[in-house]
Amino acid sequence: MNGCVSVIMGSKSDLDVVKPCLKTLKDFGVKTQTHVLSAHRTPEQVASAAAQAKKNGVEVIIGVAGKAAALAGVLAGHTSLPVIGLPVATSMMGGLDSLLSTVQMPGGVPVATVAVNGGENAALLAVRILSVKYPELAEKLDAHREAMKAKTLADDAALEKELKNL
Amino acid sequence: MNGCVSVIMGSKSDLDVVKPCLKTLKDFGVKTQTHVLSAHRTPEQVASAAAQAKKNGVEVIIGVAGKAAALAGVLAGHTSLPVIGLPVATSMMGGLDSLLSTVQMPGGVPVATVAVNGGENAALLAVRILSVKYPELAEKLDAHREAMKAKTLADDAALEKELKNL
Amino acid sequence: MNGCVSVIMGSKSDLDVVKPCLKTLKDFGVKTQTHVLSAHRTPEQVASAAAQAKKNGVEVIIGVAGKAAALAGVLAGHTSLPVIGLPVATSMMGGLDSLLSTVQMPGGVPVATVAVNGGENAALLAVRILSVKYPELAEKLDAHREAMKAKTLADDAALEKELKNL
Amino acid sequence: MNGCVSVIMGSKSDLDVVKPCLKTLKDFGVKTQTHVLSAHRTPEQVASAAAQAKKNGVEVIIGVAGKAAALAGVLAGHTSLPVIGLPVATSMMGGLDSLLSTVQMPGGVPVATVAVNGGENAALLAVRILSVKYPELAEKLDAHREAMKAKTLADDAALEKELKNL
Amino acid sequence: MNGCVSVIMGSKSDLDVVKPCLKTLKDFGVKTQTHVLSAHRTPEQVASAAAQAKKNGVEVIIGVAGKAAALAGVLAGHTSLPVIGLPVATSMMGGLDSLLSTVQMPGGVPVATVAVNGGENAALLAVRILSVKYPELAEKLDAHREAMKAKTLADDAALEKELKNL
Amino acid sequence: MNGCVSVIMGSKSDLDVVKPCLKTLKDFGVKTQTHVLSAHRTPEQVASAAAQAKKNGVEVIIGVAGKAAALAGVLAGHTSLPVIGLPVATSMMGGLDSLLSTVQMPGGVPVATVAVNGGENAALLAVRILSVKYPELAEKLDAHREAMKAKTLADDAALEKELKNL
Amino acid sequence: MNGCVSVIMGSKSDLDVVKPCLKTLKDFGVKTQTHVLSAHRTPEQVASAAAQAKKNGVEVIIGVAGKAAALAGVLAGHTSLPVIGLPVATSMMGGLDSLLSTVQMPGGVPVATVAVNGGENAALLAVRILSVKYPELAEKLDAHREAMKAKTLADDAALEKELKNL
Amino acid sequence: MNGCVSVIMGSKSDLDVVKPCLKTLKDFGVKTQTHVLSAHRTPEQVASAAAQAKKNGVEVIIGVAGKAAALAGVLAGHTSLPVIGLPVATSMMGGLDSLLSTVQMPGGVPVATVAVNGGENAALLAVRILSVKYPELAEKLDAHREAMKAKTLADDAALEKELKNL
Repeated sequence: MNGCVSVIMGSKSDLDVVKPCLKTLKDFGVKTQTHVLSAHRTPEQVASAAAQAKKNGVEVIIGVAGKAAALAGVLAGHTSLPVIGLPVATSMMGGLDSLLSTVQMPGGVPVATVAVNGGENAALLAVRILSVKYPELAEKLDAHREAMKAKTLADDAALEKELKNL
Repeated sequence: MNGCVSVIMGSKSDLDVVKPCLKTLKDFGVKTQTHVLSAHRTPEQVASAAAQAKKNGVEVIIGVAGKAAALAGVLAGHTSLPVIGLPVATSMMGGLDSLLSTVQMPGGVPVATVAVNGGENAALLAVRILSVKYPELAEKLDAHREAMKAKTLADDAALEKELKNL
Repeated sequence: MNGCVSVIMGSKSDLDVVKPCLKTLKDFGVKTQTHVLSAHRTPEQVASAAAQAKKNGVEVIIGVAGKAAALAGVLAGHTSLPVIGLPVATSMMGGLDSLLSTVQMPGGVPVATVAVNGGENAALLAVRILSVKYPELAEKLDAHREAMKAKTLADDAALEKELKNL
Repeated sequence: MNGCVSVIMGSKSDLDVVKPCLKTLKDFGVKTQTHVLSAHRTPEQVASAAAQAKKNGVEVIIGVAGKAAALAGVLAGHTSLPVIGLPVATSMMGGLDSLLSTVQMPGGVPVATVAVNGGENAALLAVRILSVKYPELAEKLDAHREAMKAKTLADDAALEKELKNL
Repeated sequence: MNGCVSVIMGSKSDLDVVKPCLKTLKDFGVKTQTHVLSAHRTPEQVASAAAQAKKNGVEVIIGVAGKAAALAGVLAGHTSLPVIGLPVATSMMGGLDSLLSTVQMPGGVPVATVAVNGGENAALLAVRILSVKYPELAEKLDAHREAMKAKTLADDAALEKELKNL
Repeated sequence: MNGCVSVIMGSKSDLDVVKPCLKTLKDFGVKTQTHVLSAHRTPEQVASAAAQAKKNGVEVIIGVAGKAAALAGVLAGHTSLPVIGLPVATSMMGGLDSLLSTVQMPGGVPVATVAVNGGENAALLAVRILSVKYPELAEKLDAHREAMKAKTLADDAALEKELKNL
Repeated sequence: MNGCVSVIMGSKSDLDVVKPCLKTLKDFGVKTQTHVLSAHRTPEQVASAAAQAKKNGVEVIIGVAGKAAALAGVLAGHTSLPVIGLPVATSMMGGLDSLLSTVQMPGGVPVATVAVNGGENAALLAVRILSVKYPELAEKLDAHREAMKAKTLADDAALEKELKNL
Repeated sequence: MNGCVSVIMGSKSDLDVVKPCLKTLKDFGVKTQTHVLSAHRTPEQVASAAAQAKKNGVEVIIGVAGKAAALAGVLAGHTSLPVIGLPVATSMMGGLDSLLSTVQMPGGVPVATVAVNGGENAALLAVRILSVKYPELAEKLDAHREAMKAKTLADDAALEKELKNL
């Protein structure tokens, strides 16, 4: 196993967005710790989870939250580890509230924000970050990119048949 | 003096928005405590300021912040006092990022949000809240509303002259 | 019973957003008065409801409305009581019309705005406001915050099992 | 003189938007009444201005306001006269708050909304409305449209010279 | 019958928004002419419909369109009659494209815009406009406003029962 | 000279956006016709300009307009020539009104929309379209792309010096 | 057959938007090449498809993509052919992300953008572009515009019956 | 020196946003390579810069671009290194076009997006990423966070004096 990522979601209702994230991390052989902790409902536990993360072997944190999504930013305020922000879609303009609350961080405390509901990309970004240290992950990422390319080219090759009966 | 309000701004650069707020609170004879504390740069101090506020005699907290404005929400997570959120204007759609980050709080932890850059209104809302307990403030608010009305009616009366040379 | 909140919705169709608000106020033992009154269809009754509220024992007003949501602002213009604005979701960008119409109040007349469709938070904000006067409500709010924390930590503890079959 | 229009602005600061409106009405020989009255600061006077308008000879009302611009809608709730809403630009996305607060009226109470800061168009719309009753205004409008056309065609004819030194 | 309104929709698919509009006009005893004509697909017919409207006895035109909704503005360019714009909801931010395309008219050519999908309000605005000329319609509008008020007050009176089992 | 483009702007005030467009067309040796014509103020001339364009040797039309920018769409309704829409910036969210009014065309009548204030790109798109017919323009476009590349690479090469005193 | 259009979609999931595009091109007798290629997953193939397009007889390229829709812009960077951008709807404000990513191209590299999900219009724009070279397509476009007009006028004629039972 | 970051900006005009980024990286003793390269004007060089980055010792890439900001996403498509996206402010809603074009990446190719114009935070995020491998950077980050905290607390301490003459 290479690297260790802590995935912290603000609410159990974020699980559908988190699952593809965890699945992808597992596929890359990255160790995960998963928590439900809220910047507003359990602020002390969020502070402590971030502050203790490094000691517990965590190397990257992913914060998952929707609406006034303070979680990732607050995590980043309690640690020097890289923190990824995964905004969850809402009915407010498709998650623009979650996105802006996550990405528009003031100077000094960065959050690495991915697309709204981009669970898979949050995981892949964590793997890219870990690959700076773990060469094996870099190889797996290259293979993954090759596989994506192959998948797209296969879709391309199959297109003619798909369009035959247009 | 009636009531005590703690005004916490995320950055010294928010002072221009905070000044009319403090001026209004002073006009109503409300005691104020003012701090620069950031949910991202000084999270422990924010937590402690909120958690200790009641013991220190604070009855209402005003959190002032821009961009991914987590401050008011995090304050509200650390206290049961009423917390007012004052979003500061940014170049991102005129402060829509600050507004959504402040108002779109998840269930359980409310923030009483006022208009972007609405420093005076944040103060007046604090006074309205305190007036539930302090009858004298209710009288002052009634007088203030009468004064506003008089001011508007004076503007109305002076309008004809203003428009003479149209 | 501690405190009294008047909940005024602009249309009967807002009832689904109002119900969790009333339920929460009831859970805290706060007395409620509920009305359907519209700033556009029954403006005199809105004016009178706001102007008479204090005499009728009301200490906080919650105005619930959607679209060009003038209700909370107009209520605030007729009283010095604290007025909470609860914007109702619409198909226009998920309620951005309701939110801006409620929160962007001009100087002098504040509305304490909560999240779009945030019925529970409107109630909790009312309770926080009343708790400034009624110590018993402050205790209940602390207990409620503890219960929320416990619920989140229970979700956290149960997470491992939930994720076993990922 | 044909027809009578009441122009009501929410604040003296709206005068710059109101002036081209008044100028245009004057050019068409329409009688005007002008007031500064606020739906939030002088709600009784707004209600009375609207309710008494018809008795005072007013045939069309123009409500001018910015931010949470309740004025036109509230005027429309107190009268059966046609009410035109003129939203004033703000720093919040160029006046989107004013526009949505004015135009997104609930069923039953229409506001005839024109463009943000569209003072001239508010006046021209009032004249078009009055022209249904006053044939002389219809003739003036036709002449005005011809003059606009001539102005544009003159700009078109002068263009070549303007572009000579490109 | 008092007055005559021409309702022109850009596409047959707008009929659902148009129907409550026609129904309301009929309820007020206003004569209607209805057409499907597109500013982009049948521009000559749109031009001619607007230019001939007055001769055909039309006193108000309602233009109904979605997306890049040019219809109402183009109609207004071909006539001096009052033109009402009724924007139709789309999936682009709930009809913000339709709304801005309709309301943001350049100086000189006003469109009286109502809320997105506001079919009933488009009709009521037409009736308000016609009522400047036809006193009988003004009486019907007053009665309609009284009926709306009565309906809201009845909803208010019935609320207690509705909330009994909360 | 290869090809002929008609550039039609809705108002003389659009000239600043049009000038780089004309300059670029001239640089490519494309013949231009330029007009100030408004879909709302001179609808007949717009209709006729579009309908006669082909007979007059025009092969591509560029429509330049702001706010409720109907011009390009209406031009496209009166001709089968390719029509490019150039939205002009406004204070409403930086020209979002102009952009949506230009690009969100209903099915059947396409407008080739470029970026807000993208005068140069409107010209380059016209040249690309004409290059399908005129091989010489294709060569010039290739050269232009090479020149842009060279300019960027020169900026890249000069960067080190620029950053020396950082 | 007249002309040849390459339709490149970023993902197989875009097929529903692409189908009406291909259908329309086929109806006009335009030859098509169709591919699934991603600016992010198969960047070399996108570069090569664009760079080789002209040699392969392609005269217009249509790039179809959603979210951070780089495809059309990147295609335009690799060729001097006219490139049409077809943004695909997403849950983020109805595809505003796709639209802005496609249309807001920097100076020098234009993309001819059509409406979100405007598959038919992307095809019709391609045909308009090709018609500059192929007179037969211009005739077909005139006929198509006549047919659209006839269809709208037939809808208009049938309207009375449709509305009989209102 | 620890770590090596390649900063690639789409245009020389982005330098003002890039400078604080480079300054911060230098302060942390991180080696930098800086380039002006455009996804649209020099696509081959962008592809090659990304593809060769790792061989050249680069461990993190920062892509800086505005408007239809494809740069960071395209870089991420050509490498498995972590890519940070730094959106540059524009007049379109304060850079919402740049932000959405950068952050809303499709599944498989993540971009670590920071706030609009967040040059300092892009650098700090790069340092956080590198700190996973270089313990010395982690220490510097902790020190930097302490310094920020001290700076904020000093602002807090100096506030009283600042507010004396309010």
